[in-house]
Amino acid sequence: MGHKIPVAVVGATGLAGQQFLAALARHPVFEVAKLAASSRSAGKSYQDAIREASGQVKWYASGSLDSRMASLVVEEASALDVSGMGAVFSALESEPARELEPRYAAHAPVISTASAYRYEADVPILIPGVNLDHAKLIEVQRQNRGWKGFITPNPNCTTTGLAITLAPLHERFGVKRVFMTSMQACSGAGRSPGVIGLDIIDNVIPYIAKEEEKVEKETRKILGTLDGAGIKPASFVVSCTCTRVPVLEGHTEAVFVELGQPATEEEIKGAWREFGAAVAARRYPSSPEHLIHVHEDPFRPQPRLDRDNEDGMATTVGRLRRDEALTNGWKYLLVSHNTKMGAAKGALLVAEYLAEKGYIG
Amino acid sequence: MGHKIPVAVVGATGLAGQQFLAALARHPVFEVAKLAASSRSAGKSYQDAIREASGQVKWYASGSLDSRMASLVVEEASALDVSGMGAVFSALESEPARELEPRYAAHAPVISTASAYRYEADVPILIPGVNLDHAKLIEVQRQNRGWKGFITPNPNCTTTGLAITLAPLHERFGVKRVFMTSMQACSGAGRSPGVIGLDIIDNVIPYIAKEEEKVEKETRKILGTLDGAGIKPASFVVSCTCTRVPVLEGHTEAVFVELGQPATEEEIKGAWREFGAAVAARRYPSSPEHLIHVHEDPFRPQPRLDRDNEDGMATTVGRLRRDEALTNGWKYLLVSHNTKMGAAKGALLVAEYLAEKGYIG
Amino acid sequence: MGHKIPVAVVGATGLAGQQFLAALARHPVFEVAKLAASSRSAGKSYQDAIREASGQVKWYASGSLDSRMASLVVEEASALDVSGMGAVFSALESEPARELEPRYAAHAPVISTASAYRYEADVPILIPGVNLDHAKLIEVQRQNRGWKGFITPNPNCTTTGLAITLAPLHERFGVKRVFMTSMQACSGAGRSPGVIGLDIIDNVIPYIAKEEEKVEKETRKILGTLDGAGIKPASFVVSCTCTRVPVLEGHTEAVFVELGQPATEEEIKGAWREFGAAVAARRYPSSPEHLIHVHEDPFRPQPRLDRDNEDGMATTVGRLRRDEALTNGWKYLLVSHNTKMGAAKGALLVAEYLAEKGYIG
Amino acid sequence: MGHKIPVAVVGATGLAGQQFLAALARHPVFEVAKLAASSRSAGKSYQDAIREASGQVKWYASGSLDSRMASLVVEEASALDVSGMGAVFSALESEPARELEPRYAAHAPVISTASAYRYEADVPILIPGVNLDHAKLIEVQRQNRGWKGFITPNPNCTTTGLAITLAPLHERFGVKRVFMTSMQACSGAGRSPGVIGLDIIDNVIPYIAKEEEKVEKETRKILGTLDGAGIKPASFVVSCTCTRVPVLEGHTEAVFVELGQPATEEEIKGAWREFGAAVAARRYPSSPEHLIHVHEDPFRPQPRLDRDNEDGMATTVGRLRRDEALTNGWKYLLVSHNTKMGAAKGALLVAEYLAEKGYIG
Repeated sequence: MGHKIPVAVVGATGLAGQQFLAALARHPVFEVAKLAASSRSAGKSYQDAIREASGQVKWYASGSLDSRMASLVVEEASALDVSGMGAVFSALESEPARELEPRYAAHAPVISTASAYRYEADVPILIPGVNLDHAKLIEVQRQNRGWKGFITPNPNCTTTGLAITLAPLHERFGVKRVFMTSMQACSGAGRSPGVIGLDIIDNVIPYIAKEEEKVEKETRKILGTLDGAGIKPASFVVSCTCTRVPVLEGHTEAVFVELGQPATEEEIKGAWREFGAAVAARRYPSSPEHLIHVHEDPFRPQPRLDRDNEDGMATTVGRLRRDEALTNGWKYLLVSHNTKMGAAKGALLVAEYLAEKGYIG
Repeated sequence: MGHKIPVAVVGATGLAGQQFLAALARHPVFEVAKLAASSRSAGKSYQDAIREASGQVKWYASGSLDSRMASLVVEEASALDVSGMGAVFSALESEPARELEPRYAAHAPVISTASAYRYEADVPILIPGVNLDHAKLIEVQRQNRGWKGFITPNPNCTTTGLAITLAPLHERFGVKRVFMTSMQACSGAGRSPGVIGLDIIDNVIPYIAKEEEKVEKETRKILGTLDGAGIKPASFVVSCTCTRVPVLEGHTEAVFVELGQPATEEEIKGAWREFGAAVAARRYPSSPEHLIHVHEDPFRPQPRLDRDNEDGMATTVGRLRRDEALTNGWKYLLVSHNTKMGAAKGALLVAEYLAEKGYIG
Repeated sequence: MGHKIPVAVVGATGLAGQQFLAALARHPVFEVAKLAASSRSAGKSYQDAIREASGQVKWYASGSLDSRMASLVVEEASALDVSGMGAVFSALESEPARELEPRYAAHAPVISTASAYRYEADVPILIPGVNLDHAKLIEVQRQNRGWKGFITPNPNCTTTGLAITLAPLHERFGVKRVFMTSMQACSGAGRSPGVIGLDIIDNVIPYIAKEEEKVEKETRKILGTLDGAGIKPASFVVSCTCTRVPVLEGHTEAVFVELGQPATEEEIKGAWREFGAAVAARRYPSSPEHLIHVHEDPFRPQPRLDRDNEDGMATTVGRLRRDEALTNGWKYLLVSHNTKMGAAKGALLVAEYLAEKGYIG
Repeated sequence: MGHKIPVAVVGATGLAGQQFLAALARHPVFEVAKLAASSRSAGKSYQDAIREASGQVKWYASGSLDSRMASLVVEEASALDVSGMGAVFSALESEPARELEPRYAAHAPVISTASAYRYEADVPILIPGVNLDHAKLIEVQRQNRGWKGFITPNPNCTTTGLAITLAPLHERFGVKRVFMTSMQACSGAGRSPGVIGLDIIDNVIPYIAKEEEKVEKETRKILGTLDGAGIKPASFVVSCTCTRVPVLEGHTEAVFVELGQPATEEEIKGAWREFGAAVAARRYPSSPEHLIHVHEDPFRPQPRLDRDNEDGMATTVGRLRRDEALTNGWKYLLVSHNTKMGAAKGALLVAEYLAEKGYIG
């Protein structure tokens, strides 16, 4: 285990937990020391914990399960001792996260894909390259709550690509108004049971409970400004319609945006191409070379062809064109890998940054 | 054949042509007397004309192919004599339509699913229940062009559901601005080859050539006002993003609309429910009972579950809710059967109306 | 309720239970008087019982839910009083069926889609048109067990099409050996959760637990001969490989069969076409016109195009051709609707027969 | 270009041609010097040649198109001068292959994925690790035909996995009889147009023209024995049913096999695991580490999870179990990547072997 930082993965058996394990296999900075999940899995080896009654091992992350992790014994999340852990990666469902994450945060930093604490005033929702200055809220949070550690949640997987592509537009031209329709992948619903074949084959499901509200709120918080002991949300309004389509991985989003001032197509593409240099260019182990890929082919981005760009850490945009229904209006589509940059690997990139800055380790 | 009106179907072998044949089987008013297609099919029985080199009969409409039609010999579209035909149903591609439809219109009414003449000043794009008053342009068209017949094209299949659901809103509250993202079915691309499996399985294709411009332009023309020798387009702006999803039939559209005045949820639903009474309520053989079905279940409409409502002639809406990014803003989703109301059966309903009014027959 | 026979549907909330309700809506002989399911559903209206936590009503049968049934209050299956019921339709899972079906059978006939009692010596597995003479075992069963009622289970949904297509071959030419590979629809796995999208999109799952053994055993029992107090299984051997494919409804099966004597293609097709006349030809409310449809087009049968033949009650065969690896060998494919003839509607057809013969009512 | 062997790829724009280009990018032994296709593509850069009328670039191989190849100008296949080429990789359709491959073979070795010459007496169908001794026929072929080069075709993509998995069984235990049902991926039908979405979504197509005959004949030739100036086919009989399923890549095959003598499960698995050592173990640039992967998990192999094992060059088997309908009968399933080991990359592996043996270069 040498000089790596020992970490725990909680909620390890779900889809997001599996993505954490896949992303942490052979990681140069962190080493998985503990796995935890619900009482149903506790006491079993990880491999047995993800085996269904039918005997099928349910492993959904790309690549095969690391053999060392496969044999780690899963602990019960509610009884997990995280002292000694450099960080806790939480892939818990919202309800257990609300109860357990503060218990962990009392002792160690918690990087979470759960929504439970996203909307608290002293909790930043960090996206590398977008708003890492919000990390300063961590100190406020520690003082407010008397914790040794802290909680930094990831955004919802649908927020991630939207916030990343809006960030450079907001910075340079100001964003006034956003309309977004998502076509989300099945993996976003997890695996217990997630979206069943009978519902999604040859179909579109026009509703994902609570999703639209999350995206609308989180995008404004992420692009907001640090304001003393909290974050002042960005002043623009976001309006979403979130749907589910028969796609395995990769959320597609159709965006209509009103900017605060005129911009040319080349200025917008330039802003995207240059965005995130501070964390991209492979600066951290999980960094992509470019946060945003800009496609000129009108038939792109496509989720099957673009979700794995830079191992799922790049957001791909295309079809940028003027929108005539808005002043300074533009339209584009984006594809973002919902279980990589949009979940575990995105959280890991945050942790890599926080480790470098001394918040973790 | 008795007292039915004899009609020709041109472009009969394609997907839209097949839908015409399916809709015209056992029709109480019209009887298919002639079938025409390209030279490749000419001289063959219809059944042989839709048989591929592999031997597979390619019939995509619901129900089985009518045996009488199966044995009709297909004529070459460019040599078709339409004198004696009460109407010509044209499912030609745009380019041959541009050349051939005027030749037919010189002798007989042409009801077309092709886009070739949709944007000409003296050509109405009719949707039953929405703008049948535009049929008065037919006289202008006849005089302008010296035709015995005329051309009335159907809207693009993606326009249909949008125009139908906007019409009652425009009538009662005024529409100011529309943003729409479509998730379109594979059948919209036809069968030669249409969308191939390798492109669409586990994927979304973010672009359909020329589709967005058509929807933006047609919606305003359809909801425009008859103005002497032409149509004054509705003054609102429509902005679209059109995508293709792994769905067989039924276009789903996510709509954001700004109204000209305040409305309540109940007023909007009421407007939808009452809309189109003049042609609905089974007034014509192809009429649905209600042009618009309003769903209260937030998980509806779904294309697989709702496309066949009223045999594909109803547009189903759901998820009506306020949009906070627009003044008097509302959001909803709709599902419309793209090859039934959105194509051949929609054209047939127009023809049924025109027959009643004496334009046909 | 008039003179209809009152029946209970147990396991009513699952996929097979829903198919029972769909099949029993407006049935001329039976009337649903009671609905039962697990304690989780007990006390709720049926409509509420099939509503998920997310709010989505999970109704998978074709057509919409009958409004009278929607408002029936679901009783707890373990406490259900079936006295007064003319029959009980059981769509229970195997384990609760083992416990509860005998309790019901003490008072009333139980027609079941569960496998629990299929392999007991005094229990016939009835398929209308195939082995209704096995119904005579019902008397033996009643005597053995001291029941007022009895249990007659349906075969597994994969057995149904195989047994129906082998029956006339066995009768006329003798079946010696059968190899079958199935490509089964997702609906066969039910809805709790059934097959999830992440597992089945762009995939084939090569294993369905216990399925092959069931098909191998049941086919021989169904085509066996009544022998005093039991059934002597047919002497041929059946070897199966059962897989799951991304299809919503309709099992496809590729069959290789060795016959006991030479046959011509026309003799085999003739045997299929004439088969089942005693129950087909719409003799019962749920009868198809023909039990078996024979296709000459080599591209048929296809599950999407053929599953709904005769409202899911016909088995469609095609691609009959000689097999060179077997003496008197033949190959063919079949499609059978797994949740209609292969489950609830098939069970209902059995009940219609048993009612006519005085076993029910 | 240095010391690499210059090669031409003919039929370069189709799916198999694209797979050749993907496999040859950065290849250590071969360098693509010429590209050829039909007259429709001739004179265009490769990138333009695979751009459709709609503007969409149709590139289906994994990875992106090599930029040097993208700008190569495509020549007309019928006018291609192959002198100076160390080898010609042909991905032509069967008909042009019959005409053009002999013209190329007069001057250079032709490694082909086309079926045109597979069944000629002096033409071997080579699979590395299975029957490379058949390469000796090349000399016979050259003498017979007076060619400087020769033709060695790959087997049909469905034959490949079957022949590879039967080879070690035939060698050790003797194969007597084979029944195989395939569930084939859409990519097997190519891209012009291949399988269209309207045909394959939510469906199985039970017939692939000429496929079964090819597999039945090729398997016996490949596992046959070199016999003077020809190959004596293996004496067993193969009976197939070939179907198409909604899977992008990777053919799944359910096999029932009768062996000539008793074998244990461990003996069979051992034979598979050890098979092909002479070409596997990464001996050639395109070699997998193991030709055959044996899975113990009954839910494997699955095409989506196993097609890319060893970059598509391994055949994965699973579910080995006894078959009770055959003497010494066994059943198993296999997954093989149809456009990699089953097509271009398999052909490339043959070429790597032939280059080492001095037949090429």
